[in-house]
Amino acid sequence: METILCNNPNDVNITVPSRVSRKENPKTTIVNVNGVEIGGSEVIIVGGPCAIESMEQLYETAWSVKASGAKILRGGAFKPRSSPYSFQGLGEEGLKLLRQIRRKSELAVVTEVMDTRQVELVAEHADMLQIGSRNMQNYPLLKEVGLSGKPVLLKRGMMSTIEEFLHSAEYILNEGNDQVVLCERGIRTFETSTRNTLDLSAIPMLKQLSHLPVIVDPSHGTGLRWMVPVMAKAAVAAGADGLIIEVHYKPEIALCDGDQSLDPDEFAILMTDLRKVAKAVGREIS
Amino acid sequence: METILCNNPNDVNITVPSRVSRKENPKTTIVNVNGVEIGGSEVIIVGGPCAIESMEQLYETAWSVKASGAKILRGGAFKPRSSPYSFQGLGEEGLKLLRQIRRKSELAVVTEVMDTRQVELVAEHADMLQIGSRNMQNYPLLKEVGLSGKPVLLKRGMMSTIEEFLHSAEYILNEGNDQVVLCERGIRTFETSTRNTLDLSAIPMLKQLSHLPVIVDPSHGTGLRWMVPVMAKAAVAAGADGLIIEVHYKPEIALCDGDQSLDPDEFAILMTDLRKVAKAVGREIS
Amino acid sequence: METILCNNPNDVNITVPSRVSRKENPKTTIVNVNGVEIGGSEVIIVGGPCAIESMEQLYETAWSVKASGAKILRGGAFKPRSSPYSFQGLGEEGLKLLRQIRRKSELAVVTEVMDTRQVELVAEHADMLQIGSRNMQNYPLLKEVGLSGKPVLLKRGMMSTIEEFLHSAEYILNEGNDQVVLCERGIRTFETSTRNTLDLSAIPMLKQLSHLPVIVDPSHGTGLRWMVPVMAKAAVAAGADGLIIEVHYKPEIALCDGDQSLDPDEFAILMTDLRKVAKAVGREIS
Amino acid sequence: METILCNNPNDVNITVPSRVSRKENPKTTIVNVNGVEIGGSEVIIVGGPCAIESMEQLYETAWSVKASGAKILRGGAFKPRSSPYSFQGLGEEGLKLLRQIRRKSELAVVTEVMDTRQVELVAEHADMLQIGSRNMQNYPLLKEVGLSGKPVLLKRGMMSTIEEFLHSAEYILNEGNDQVVLCERGIRTFETSTRNTLDLSAIPMLKQLSHLPVIVDPSHGTGLRWMVPVMAKAAVAAGADGLIIEVHYKPEIALCDGDQSLDPDEFAILMTDLRKVAKAVGREIS
Repeated sequence: METILCNNPNDVNITVPSRVSRKENPKTTIVNVNGVEIGGSEVIIVGGPCAIESMEQLYETAWSVKASGAKILRGGAFKPRSSPYSFQGLGEEGLKLLRQIRRKSELAVVTEVMDTRQVELVAEHADMLQIGSRNMQNYPLLKEVGLSGKPVLLKRGMMSTIEEFLHSAEYILNEGNDQVVLCERGIRTFETSTRNTLDLSAIPMLKQLSHLPVIVDPSHGTGLRWMVPVMAKAAVAAGADGLIIEVHYKPEIALCDGDQSLDPDEFAILMTDLRKVAKAVGREIS
Repeated sequence: METILCNNPNDVNITVPSRVSRKENPKTTIVNVNGVEIGGSEVIIVGGPCAIESMEQLYETAWSVKASGAKILRGGAFKPRSSPYSFQGLGEEGLKLLRQIRRKSELAVVTEVMDTRQVELVAEHADMLQIGSRNMQNYPLLKEVGLSGKPVLLKRGMMSTIEEFLHSAEYILNEGNDQVVLCERGIRTFETSTRNTLDLSAIPMLKQLSHLPVIVDPSHGTGLRWMVPVMAKAAVAAGADGLIIEVHYKPEIALCDGDQSLDPDEFAILMTDLRKVAKAVGREIS
Repeated sequence: METILCNNPNDVNITVPSRVSRKENPKTTIVNVNGVEIGGSEVIIVGGPCAIESMEQLYETAWSVKASGAKILRGGAFKPRSSPYSFQGLGEEGLKLLRQIRRKSELAVVTEVMDTRQVELVAEHADMLQIGSRNMQNYPLLKEVGLSGKPVLLKRGMMSTIEEFLHSAEYILNEGNDQVVLCERGIRTFETSTRNTLDLSAIPMLKQLSHLPVIVDPSHGTGLRWMVPVMAKAAVAAGADGLIIEVHYKPEIALCDGDQSLDPDEFAILMTDLRKVAKAVGREIS
Repeated sequence: METILCNNPNDVNITVPSRVSRKENPKTTIVNVNGVEIGGSEVIIVGGPCAIESMEQLYETAWSVKASGAKILRGGAFKPRSSPYSFQGLGEEGLKLLRQIRRKSELAVVTEVMDTRQVELVAEHADMLQIGSRNMQNYPLLKEVGLSGKPVLLKRGMMSTIEEFLHSAEYILNEGNDQVVLCERGIRTFETSTRNTLDLSAIPMLKQLSHLPVIVDPSHGTGLRWMVPVMAKAAVAAGADGLIIEVHYKPEIALCDGDQSLDPDEFAILMTDLRKVAKAVGREIS
């Protein structure tokens, strides 16, 4: 596996807290999500719908992403939506669907938790807890998922610096839980042609400063279905340890984020392309 | 009281949800904080320390801001800090100090709540609940303070658009609570000479689009003690219904944000200056 | 005249070049534009159309802004437009119209210069040379207007830091010309409800760090006609030494920026309001 | 060569002017720089120092980048520097050195032009004219390089939108010159750990909207020598038609941008790695 050139490790002027710091913990952490290892030589692909909508939708999507090589299924039961009038997710019913598909598909599953009061419930149903961008600095929630002991997928806030991102991860590690994966998902800039600006330089920067694995979300990062595959390849070339990609069995009828979801055929083609890029940078995708 | 010129009310391309919309509710809402009315012709000044540190600190500061004309005391018991190793606030003990000073000083009090599980507790001790910038899109928390029925001070996220800000307020109103004050506190930009960039155009924009009162926080907006008074005056000239200003009886020993806190003498001088500006734009400060 | 509180003059971490630095030249520079002094206790108002369109347009607009109290007339002959297919200005013909109106109205005039090859020509027709936002870092042009000896109105780039802004001014002073007025005109941020985000904190910051006068352009800063008056008042409260405001005798038929131009009646009302605010902060408008 | 998936070509809400538009001119333009073709299946690498300093420096650097596979030599004679007191380049003397090395090395050469009055001179010495970020909206300069007929390397402004970038290119094409290469070089955001934020999504976006080739500058895009190789690979994976990389024979003594320049050995290793990535996405580097 390739290593990052680093002649001047000290030229970045950032305070990195101790538990997440690579300087104090040189070995890359392997995060184990029910047997799936993130942070090793394999690039792990997470696929699935934005929101869990129905048994049929989740089953069909899970089956297709697994067939193409994804190792983890994503799907939201509690959805943080800008408007109180948008679809808010199926809630506990969605979690139950997720657990059923988890058992049938033998995929590990990740889902978002938004409220300290839900952490215990969500932890019973999922293999990995996702903290969304809007909650990256929700400190009581960070402490609670830290205490849960479950693997955590921590998304970068859309307005958060690398320094703040690492400090938020420190909150989780500080509760005794080092099973944290950092996720770059696009930051907010003046540019409006894409939904967000995917900051791929965050990958080498985070890996330079911290021992935690880093994955990328090109779906939220671009907001454009046709752009997801290109940026997914770029993320792997930039050293990402994994990708989280929105896939829907029928994007045109999705209740949430259909415009940025791949259909199963697009996802299958992408996986083939990604294997070539991964190999070119000394990684693999099984 | 002055009115804002508006020849082309439709020239802003923003979706405004119904309950916060001025178009659907033309009359400005008056938010009543234990008898102090925000949204009328009087410009209401909120003063006090970033964090509650001790009885002496809170007592001395409260007494001085009241003497200068502040109507509401601010002070944090639960502090959202970027680092888990920074002072996190006195917690419940801080709330008790706040309630004691509230009784003695007869000032209304506002304090931040960060966790859905704390809303009931904080609501017992304070007249107004503050939602901080980092929690502007913490939807379970917004719903919970909506259900509490208490007046809410909702701070704009440091990288949230006006449209998102209004949608977050809608979450609170949607629970039956219209006692919401919007607070501009600086946004994140490329400019680094100030801590944030205080977006004073948010004042006329929010007042144009919504019936909710708008106040400004020049302390976080600038991060620079010497700049607070100038920007406070500019905010009043721009039509703010109030200001929230960090004051500490001894800024040089403050545990939090001392660099941006005024001392009692600076605050007294500022209040005198603010009265002149308020009068010049058809408002008053008592 | 009011002074800015400054307990910690060293708390801003910016490199300020020597010729523009207030530390090295404590006395505020007075810029003399054909007898009109910018930088003294009087707040100077510049008014006029975005682009010079015709004798009638310029004459009518000049007459009305003068009647309301403006001291300087603005009007563009060479217009920097994002698209090559937009109206590019009347060029030399526009300069001649400007000179005629200058003579008849006895107003000083300012107009933009975009090309090193035009500096001599423009300097013959105008009292003050404007460097637009897009050219703030056009160093050959900065040197050329420095050599011209004419007063210069230097607009902040929409993407430029305070530090870069001061360095660009230094290019002009370094050619022996200290007659430079700095102009805040809005910066580019993620917020899209206004055309730009008017950074009023730039006023105290620039005046703290430099001895050069500072004026504000609320027309480009907001892009919204109805918002111009409110932000103009806020700018004066924040300590601006002047304002530059787009006024058109018939905004609805303007070839450029009609959406953000005041008509003569709106401008007259604004001038009355501005006098009150100026007085409240220890300044005056004649 | 791979094609970009595009199911919804109309989902980007941008006005694209006609001459640069791919919709109106579907075939990708090949830009011919003295025999080197940019825009075909080969990924073209441009290497060389930030500023031309001496015959020895330019000769040694040119020789090494050529040996590693670069096709074009970069080197600045006129340097746009934020401070008037920084090294401003060797000027005409630098151009003469560039022409000598061009002849000896048989590399094509590109260099920046900053002033309309220099265009003729620079065009005599270089195969390609570079417009720097600060001049992306210097319209007289864009027209002048358009009239020169020479190939143009147009860098994106550090805070310019994709829409503005394409409009600036239109200025050049509108003068009858379609030999324009677009260059993404990092945009300005709130993130400060990197010098700029390299916006790799600009590559697929520009190629989707326009027929012009797109190259990437990871040196200015990151400002960090150790990060350049990783981001260079990511750019190729994202579909870049070329890269422009700062290389200095002795970075530690460079007069300009030494912190982001590779030395010849690092550049040689990178070229080997880039060939693998190019092949993985259906491109080649000779």
